[in-house]
Amino acid sequence: MGYCYGIDLGGTAIKFSLFTDQGKLVEKWQHPTKIEEKGKYIISDIALTILDHMDQNNFSKEQIIGIGVGVPAVVDESGIVNVAPNLGWKQTDVGKKLREMTDIPCYVINDANAAALGEYACGGGRGNHSMVLLTLGTGVGGGVVLDGKVVTGLGGAAGEMGHICVNDQETIPCNCGNYGCLEQYSSATGIVRSYREFRNAGKSGILSPDGPIEARDVFDAIKEGDQAASEALERLGYYLGKACAAIACVIAPEVIVLGGGVSHAGEILLTTVKKYFQQFAFSPCRQTKFALAAAGNDAGIYGCAYLVLNSRKESD
Amino acid sequence: MGYCYGIDLGGTAIKFSLFTDQGKLVEKWQHPTKIEEKGKYIISDIALTILDHMDQNNFSKEQIIGIGVGVPAVVDESGIVNVAPNLGWKQTDVGKKLREMTDIPCYVINDANAAALGEYACGGGRGNHSMVLLTLGTGVGGGVVLDGKVVTGLGGAAGEMGHICVNDQETIPCNCGNYGCLEQYSSATGIVRSYREFRNAGKSGILSPDGPIEARDVFDAIKEGDQAASEALERLGYYLGKACAAIACVIAPEVIVLGGGVSHAGEILLTTVKKYFQQFAFSPCRQTKFALAAAGNDAGIYGCAYLVLNSRKESD
Repeated sequence: MGYCYGIDLGGTAIKFSLFTDQGKLVEKWQHPTKIEEKGKYIISDIALTILDHMDQNNFSKEQIIGIGVGVPAVVDESGIVNVAPNLGWKQTDVGKKLREMTDIPCYVINDANAAALGEYACGGGRGNHSMVLLTLGTGVGGGVVLDGKVVTGLGGAAGEMGHICVNDQETIPCNCGNYGCLEQYSSATGIVRSYREFRNAGKSGILSPDGPIEARDVFDAIKEGDQAASEALERLGYYLGKACAAIACVIAPEVIVLGGGVSHAGEILLTTVKKYFQQFAFSPCRQTKFALAAAGNDAGIYGCAYLVLNSRKESD
Repeated sequence: MGYCYGIDLGGTAIKFSLFTDQGKLVEKWQHPTKIEEKGKYIISDIALTILDHMDQNNFSKEQIIGIGVGVPAVVDESGIVNVAPNLGWKQTDVGKKLREMTDIPCYVINDANAAALGEYACGGGRGNHSMVLLTLGTGVGGGVVLDGKVVTGLGGAAGEMGHICVNDQETIPCNCGNYGCLEQYSSATGIVRSYREFRNAGKSGILSPDGPIEARDVFDAIKEGDQAASEALERLGYYLGKACAAIACVIAPEVIVLGGGVSHAGEILLTTVKKYFQQFAFSPCRQTKFALAAAGNDAGIYGCAYLVLNSRKESD
């Protein structure tokens, strides 16, 4: 039987996984990421871990279809990492190095794109031809998958939907330096910021605007009838629905999947986003479905395995 | 030698063309479109014209790689036309009918997408892997081409960038029923509307706001120092630059090509759009190039030929 490895390389841990050639997860485990000395040990650590795992399981090189690696960095069309600040890397050809050490085909992908592929193959996007993932976390990231392939775009910059300008009247800058980016309103940070603003503007609420607040607190407060929390959710949904309508005008995906911490709010998030999406969407695009991410923390490893298995099918 | 036919089917004329299998245009000619009786003669007219042309040139069926047809209608992923109001058609499987009559492989594509493929293959997008065409005419249409393939999207609705909401403060509805669509500002109609607005609001200008005005008059007036005309161009560029920045966040195309009547304004249009694109674009996307459409009225037939020749390569 054939296998592949899916590896989700993060700033604190490296998640390893073994999949069958049918895409079934067999085993997963993780190591701390050795970020010391500008991350110089990371690639050899991955190579040795895999060679060791193959040894223990008596796998021959011929049995291993490939290794897919998701990296927290911009990855260009040829698979080269430009800068990975969390790992300490400058320009690095991860795939080439890993291939030299293991003699196994290697595929490198941006970690957000790996998660998008994972959601497409096994999560909220399953069963669709085209999907956009929006990850509503500290910021808003995402990925675009068309016919089983991630759209990387010029210099790997596709899928950065968090930086669509949705409000050109904004006076506070986004972390990116622009004004009115989607992530200023529809991230976990964004909904908390909105909550504080509404509270300070006199809307009633149960949370102190000056204390520590997390996105989940705001969603919990909505259930308690908190006015500021409801308005913060409306703002999040308004701008997210508007951005999704813009995305639909460009590529008209079959489904838009919402992931990240904010997506744990569930049905109330979907309902709010869909309401504003219907308001802003061009009529032929109004059939677009919305779904919650479903692959959880394993999205990355699933996506890396899918990348390997799908690349194999193509070169067959 | 192998050949293919490219056909641009419009509401008033059908443009026929013959290309070599290397993509070289050999011959083109046109017929009026027989739109009588709900367009029931159109497909047989195309089939007979081609069979006749083959006869006259002693082409065997084996020499003809395929027929590509651009249709002024939404075409779904399987090539079926849903409704084509300009032709009088209801749901029609154009490719199947044409194939039955000619016994030659047929490929059907939306006419705006055909023009986008034509610009990609032989016009302003030539030499790039990914391209977005924005056609600034009476409305704003367009097409998205990634790695030589048009993105059709759910129900054929991709590439409708003219209906991205760029101004949620707008109180006048777009033809689509929504408010603040790109085409309300950045089409030929849009710049004329803006001109009239600025004149009526007291800006100085050489054209009467109550007389007939065309987009080219506005561009000519700019050269004469017309204040209202300059502001209308700034508004066009502001919203177009903003929409292009949103497009870049989604798919980060290598080049954005501007076509349609408004693009005859040339360098002054490019300069204005680029200025606002730089303001709104997420920094990794700022390398996106801008170009003017270059395939002119032949974009459609070039795109249809490219579609046939590219589909052939894939099935090889």
